[in-house]
Amino acid sequence: MIAQVMEVNEILEQTLLFDFYGELLTEHQKEIYGRLITEDLSLGEIAGEAGISRQGVHDLIKRCNQTLRGYEEKLHLVERFLAVKEKVERIDRLLDDYNEENAGELIRSIRRISGEIIEEL
Amino acid sequence: MIAQVMEVNEILEQTLLFDFYGELLTEHQKEIYGRLITEDLSLGEIAGEAGISRQGVHDLIKRCNQTLRGYEEKLHLVERFLAVKEKVERIDRLLDDYNEENAGELIRSIRRISGEIIEEL
Repeated sequence: MIAQVMEVNEILEQTLLFDFYGELLTEHQKEIYGRLITEDLSLGEIAGEAGISRQGVHDLIKRCNQTLRGYEEKLHLVERFLAVKEKVERIDRLLDDYNEENAGELIRSIRRISGEIIEEL
Repeated sequence: MIAQVMEVNEILEQTLLFDFYGELLTEHQKEIYGRLITEDLSLGEIAGEAGISRQGVHDLIKRCNQTLRGYEEKLHLVERFLAVKEKVERIDRLLDDYNEENAGELIRSIRRISGEIIEEL
């Protein structure tokens, strides 16, 4: 169960990193790594279709993970985006609770959060 | 006047690019380019303090501009951030217009915008 959660987290992390920094990989890396993320294929299947060894795919993915994580360690842009997203989602949830009585308080809360977002961006 | 506006825009562009991708420059580039942006110094002053020629500073800045713009052309992360920021500012302006009569409509507008932001992030 923990292994599964970790796997899901790793795929989510890889997807985010690829979405943000994927264009900094080589064409070949983008092709292989992109397939790993967007298609539900095993390493063996990707290797077969790309005409390289399973070990080759494994090494390439490992290297891409290192490269992409390296960019995030330097730039923290995924982190910044996720922080903004979390706040916008908080605004969205506040709107769910809207009624005529709490409108004023709600508007104040949203304003505080939107101000925080603007400061961070 | 147009020249002034362009200069302000270029400094704004450089500041944004440096904020997002500056950590991908070398330490030396970061030092010089960072001073250009954060301190109101001439090329000659920066050169004097860094112990390099004015032409050297000029070339370094030109190369950094190319490098940073190259990252933005590939990743478009400044563009993405600015689009989100513009929308959050729209939410902020809508909140300015809040009164008891228009509350329902206002909440709907904010919800539409926050939904758009979440989709983009």
